[in-house]
Amino acid sequence: MKAAGLGAAGTALGAVTITSAQAQEEWDEQFDVVVAGSGGAAFAGAIGALHGGASVVMLEKAPFIGGTTAKSGGGSWVPNNKWMAAMGHQDDKDTYLRYVARVSFPELYNDHSPTLGMTEHHWAQLNAFWDNAAGVFEKLDETGALPSGVFLSWDGKPAPDYHGHLEENGQILGRQLATMVDGKSGSGADMIDYMSIYAEDNGLDIRTEHRVVKIVRNEDGRVIGVHAETPDGLVRIGAAKGVIFGTGGFTHNPHMRTQFQRNPAMGGCAVPTNEGDLINMSSELGVKLGNLNEAWNQQEILEEVLEFSSVPSGVFFLGGDSAIAVNKHGKRMYDEKYVYPERTRSHHYYDQWTGDYPNLYQVFLFDDGAREFGGYLIPPAGADLPGYVITGDTLEALAENIQARFDSLAERIGTYKLGPDFLANLKDTITRYNGFAETGVDLDFHRGESPIDAYFHAVSVDKGNKNPYISAISETGPYYAILLAPGTLDTKGGPVFDANGQVLDVHDQPIPGFYVAGNAAASPSGKSYLGGGGTLGLGITFGYLAGQHAASQDA
Amino acid sequence: MKAAGLGAAGTALGAVTITSAQAQEEWDEQFDVVVAGSGGAAFAGAIGALHGGASVVMLEKAPFIGGTTAKSGGGSWVPNNKWMAAMGHQDDKDTYLRYVARVSFPELYNDHSPTLGMTEHHWAQLNAFWDNAAGVFEKLDETGALPSGVFLSWDGKPAPDYHGHLEENGQILGRQLATMVDGKSGSGADMIDYMSIYAEDNGLDIRTEHRVVKIVRNEDGRVIGVHAETPDGLVRIGAAKGVIFGTGGFTHNPHMRTQFQRNPAMGGCAVPTNEGDLINMSSELGVKLGNLNEAWNQQEILEEVLEFSSVPSGVFFLGGDSAIAVNKHGKRMYDEKYVYPERTRSHHYYDQWTGDYPNLYQVFLFDDGAREFGGYLIPPAGADLPGYVITGDTLEALAENIQARFDSLAERIGTYKLGPDFLANLKDTITRYNGFAETGVDLDFHRGESPIDAYFHAVSVDKGNKNPYISAISETGPYYAILLAPGTLDTKGGPVFDANGQVLDVHDQPIPGFYVAGNAAASPSGKSYLGGGGTLGLGITFGYLAGQHAASQDA
Repeated sequence: MKAAGLGAAGTALGAVTITSAQAQEEWDEQFDVVVAGSGGAAFAGAIGALHGGASVVMLEKAPFIGGTTAKSGGGSWVPNNKWMAAMGHQDDKDTYLRYVARVSFPELYNDHSPTLGMTEHHWAQLNAFWDNAAGVFEKLDETGALPSGVFLSWDGKPAPDYHGHLEENGQILGRQLATMVDGKSGSGADMIDYMSIYAEDNGLDIRTEHRVVKIVRNEDGRVIGVHAETPDGLVRIGAAKGVIFGTGGFTHNPHMRTQFQRNPAMGGCAVPTNEGDLINMSSELGVKLGNLNEAWNQQEILEEVLEFSSVPSGVFFLGGDSAIAVNKHGKRMYDEKYVYPERTRSHHYYDQWTGDYPNLYQVFLFDDGAREFGGYLIPPAGADLPGYVITGDTLEALAENIQARFDSLAERIGTYKLGPDFLANLKDTITRYNGFAETGVDLDFHRGESPIDAYFHAVSVDKGNKNPYISAISETGPYYAILLAPGTLDTKGGPVFDANGQVLDVHDQPIPGFYVAGNAAASPSGKSYLGGGGTLGLGITFGYLAGQHAASQDA
Repeated sequence: MKAAGLGAAGTALGAVTITSAQAQEEWDEQFDVVVAGSGGAAFAGAIGALHGGASVVMLEKAPFIGGTTAKSGGGSWVPNNKWMAAMGHQDDKDTYLRYVARVSFPELYNDHSPTLGMTEHHWAQLNAFWDNAAGVFEKLDETGALPSGVFLSWDGKPAPDYHGHLEENGQILGRQLATMVDGKSGSGADMIDYMSIYAEDNGLDIRTEHRVVKIVRNEDGRVIGVHAETPDGLVRIGAAKGVIFGTGGFTHNPHMRTQFQRNPAMGGCAVPTNEGDLINMSSELGVKLGNLNEAWNQQEILEEVLEFSSVPSGVFFLGGDSAIAVNKHGKRMYDEKYVYPERTRSHHYYDQWTGDYPNLYQVFLFDDGAREFGGYLIPPAGADLPGYVITGDTLEALAENIQARFDSLAERIGTYKLGPDFLANLKDTITRYNGFAETGVDLDFHRGESPIDAYFHAVSVDKGNKNPYISAISETGPYYAILLAPGTLDTKGGPVFDANGQVLDVHDQPIPGFYVAGNAAASPSGKSYLGGGGTLGLGITFGYLAGQHAASQDA
């Protein structure tokens, strides 16, 4: 075999093939199952393997566990779960399939097709998800690995799906679960706390600062272990039954991000270790790659994503009532209360005549009334303003200061000019929007009309508006603006896997011993987010199934 | 090594590693250089290798040579070529670099960056293209392999670039070359005729019905040959100096097309053999993949692309003067005279609220006046109408018949309904458009204003319109409609390569003996089309360089 060269970072990601005879001498340590990564999908894999009686080691690249899960809201989208049923919300498989097909693969959706237009593979995977998701979460709950319950909103209601206003959505509530902490919805950090404590109590060996750099296979093509870089040098760890990758996506690999993705993205919420290592290691293993063009999209604050790439937190919501988002031409682009993944798609709109993305950088504008109303991204009245908040006593001054901010960033983003029509259009936009405030109806973008809009946005102050999410923008300043850029929670493409979590080769055959789950994998959800926890619902379900399948293999 | 499984088609695409000792016994035949594919890039590779003194065999999967090149217009975009200079059109490297950076990577373009925002890799590749392209075409011309000259339009003018109206374009004319046949611009078929005759005269051995299915490498990782499937069984062919892939993209691989591409595409003009074989074979070789999200976009006639996937010809131009293209809501989307790759991007516009692509299927509408004017896709006055032309004596009837056509296709595309606002909006659209006909100025989409618009569209009849490309649509029928769908000429992603045409591994190191060119490769042109022949200009230049580099290796 060719010896892999050293990458720019000095890390030679790749694969190694050894003979059975060599394998006798290879390992520093050996376990039944090796799990790479330590987010929700990885822990589900570890726990699934532990439940199957396997010895398991977890290798995490970072100095701490939890991955992007620990930064997340911790929701899990689980259709047909017992907790929603207990609240009186019935689920239905046909309705589920119609919804997931429609939103995951809109250009392929076909109501005349037995697979609803999906490939046989996606049909099988999304059926497997329905068939197994609830059982996995119930098992995790019963064993104490992860106590679940229906995620409840600020006003105590179960969640609708993210595309709940579409005809193909069944208006079903309660698919979003949360980790329950003392009877209340917890966060992603709580999820990792529970799963890690349970897993360690049940024998999981967790190693941080262990970056898997090589996948080791034998002469039959079976994956039998890994090499990991550690502060103390390389360790060689055998996996008698399988290796499960729950190592996240490639948000922080600029090459993959720009050359694979559908949408322009400048970084994202994923932990900085999510650099596409698995895709690079898999490049020698005949792996079938899928869904490389998609991500769990999210908006970011421009200055933050330029500074960090891995941002502290993304722009999940746009708070405030007297607040709008406009593009470089001063025009609104969407329902500002709609879900983050869909808002983010607006950045990708490409103007073929100008040859650029007029929505690439956006201006989120609000006034003092919005600060009184509050909400995500809105500094409360009286609070100090973060440096990324641009101010102006008039719209003219605000526009000037926005341009000055872009100018100050020119070394990073190049010369970027608001359109010459920005101010005039902005004034027209505000006039029209203020008219919507009077009627309560957003004729352009349906603000507040999707079930998810109200679900995610508290009405903190009753101002007597017909639509509590649309309040007129003040005719006098001060005005505030925050610049928004496109990003991800993480990407969702990588090796294609089957219902057992096994990685498929380019001939659609499973590669023995090789498993993947979560954002490291080709998500069967295509371009959709499904609902809150669409990430972890899929990741934990297929992660657990992978762990179970690996544990059931002959050592 | 793992034995690759059989794919659905019974073809086990992949790689084989053998030892030097085994290699002594391996080959049925041996050449210095093996070229896979037989389009422009492949022939350039073969000729480059022949010029370097190598023995060369060409293996073509199809029963005939030429690939997609033979179906194409045969233009080649070659900056700074001597033929444009002879016509008095000077080129300039800085202008060239600014243009290619701006249009190839618009979201990365940065006028404050030493690489204009591009990666170092793309900077190097696009510099190498400038440095070598003209020399390669001059060499091919001088040797008689491919006689070139400036491509001239219907009115005898040299071509502007496809984004000639952008500020970063230098208004430079004549970069598009054509194969010269008896002093006139020839086609892609003429290009293949010239190159194949020249190459065979100079010793090239051409084999059709030879599908390369395995890349063979030795224990040092050097590519040393291939296995090819033929009607007479598998043949093993050694390549002492290198293997060059000019095998086209993955337009006809539905998995890759939907899971990798930025834009939805239903098929395209590429020959049906372009199924992404190289990406599947490369999956075991540690190859770095790039530009997977992009294609040379093109519109197709909906019924044709549903029937053939590989369409006879795409919708390069929208002819006629009293003619517009509208979406399912009866609204125009673009300058109908603008270039095909950019028009096609309109299909990708995604409406986040409805969760679908309102421009996915488009209606190209025209009247008898347009038939008098003529042009691409327009049946001349009096001619029989192809089955894909929908007619109606009134706009109402036309809309009904369009819906009936969609209904007739429901098994293939699912239930597809024109918006309830279609007819009303269409009437408003026509009224507004007819106003533009009076003034000659398209206030919405700049019809006819890009230099490329007039270049590609003859004015066949002088109707005295202020803008010859905008004529009012008749107030009385009959009306005609053709349904447009998104597609490609071919995709433009695959293995990343260096200035020698060598495939890079995931550590950015060249893989010895392994070369790629044309649409099989990760195009350094990113998302842009540059200008007419953007495909073949890059493919032939880097193909020839690959052939030269391979020939210069030690056997």
